[in-house]
Amino acid sequence: MKNNGLLIVFSGPSGAGKDTILNHLMQVNPNLRLSVSATTRSPRVGEVDGQDYHFITKDQFKAMADHGEMLESAEYCGNCYGTPSEPIKNWISEGFDVILEIEVQGGAQIKKKCPECTSVFILPPSFSVLEHRLRNRNTENEETIQKRLETARKEILEAVHYDYFIINNTVENAADEINAIICAEKHKLYRDSNVIERVLNNA
Amino acid sequence: MKNNGLLIVFSGPSGAGKDTILNHLMQVNPNLRLSVSATTRSPRVGEVDGQDYHFITKDQFKAMADHGEMLESAEYCGNCYGTPSEPIKNWISEGFDVILEIEVQGGAQIKKKCPECTSVFILPPSFSVLEHRLRNRNTENEETIQKRLETARKEILEAVHYDYFIINNTVENAADEINAIICAEKHKLYRDSNVIERVLNNA
Repeated sequence: MKNNGLLIVFSGPSGAGKDTILNHLMQVNPNLRLSVSATTRSPRVGEVDGQDYHFITKDQFKAMADHGEMLESAEYCGNCYGTPSEPIKNWISEGFDVILEIEVQGGAQIKKKCPECTSVFILPPSFSVLEHRLRNRNTENEETIQKRLETARKEILEAVHYDYFIINNTVENAADEINAIICAEKHKLYRDSNVIERVLNNA
Repeated sequence: MKNNGLLIVFSGPSGAGKDTILNHLMQVNPNLRLSVSATTRSPRVGEVDGQDYHFITKDQFKAMADHGEMLESAEYCGNCYGTPSEPIKNWISEGFDVILEIEVQGGAQIKKKCPECTSVFILPPSFSVLEHRLRNRNTENEETIQKRLETARKEILEAVHYDYFIINNTVENAADEINAIICAEKHKLYRDSNVIERVLNNA
């Protein structure tokens, strides 16, 4: 019998290095699956349906939300975004650990709906490192950068609601620490209290 | 600033392999310290004071217990056994993680007194493996073995009160999993909520 996998909520401010850590994690941990969001916005150049997003119509989105098939949802700039629950449920029942990269408001929705999820917040080593990383992208003007820094500051304050924090000093260490958290969570007795029976019954 | 270390309560039935795991852990994790119990019984041949036990008099034991200097205590066969709190407090404030190997009743006392401790229960892969290990010691008669097995069965049922379980399939895996638990616990936000302030203030 395979145990259920974990649902891992993964958040952090822009510039903390979430995507780099996730790319590395997916390479080193074959038991992970990444949740793919659904959106009603049009695909941008290079975006692949089912990989970057599930691109669906407003009617499809509404039907899924009405049937309780979205774990969380939100609207930005007139477009709907949401997390389809079906693939997550299937992966978890097959024993895979599912990572859901999501901003803090969505993370709070998930924690409320699935209190057994494991939430991890990625922090930069310091705010000045985050500022440096954001500025080094060289794609935005000063006003946009200031807005992003303000948003990042607010998001970091939300970390207090998460189970775990990871400081992204190096990608390898951050990934090791996330794998340690996954390993530890799988050894919590409340997640597998049958283990006692299995040992006693030599099962 | 160094963070406080963890207090780790470590239990499991006789034959589960606790000592072998601890010996290996102490070799691979330099940040661990082992708590040494105090007892009023006389040292056996080969036992070293301060290493196997702190051998103290009944008056000394009573004075320590009266002054609240024992984290837990118990009496067996007319002798007192207890866990002196002073060295544990010092190590923890220096940032060391302290392992306290203890039977289940003592473990319950500690969890009540120090709810922030991390409790880990070592399980054998199966009850028949444990029986095999106990019989292979070849030092006890059938009646003693049956008593030990009955005690082990009762102790294993107490695992449900622990935070984490480890199945001792191999010493190396068990030690890796305990190190993962230690790593995860140190990344819990509630243990270090100052981390947010430190990041925001570039401290």
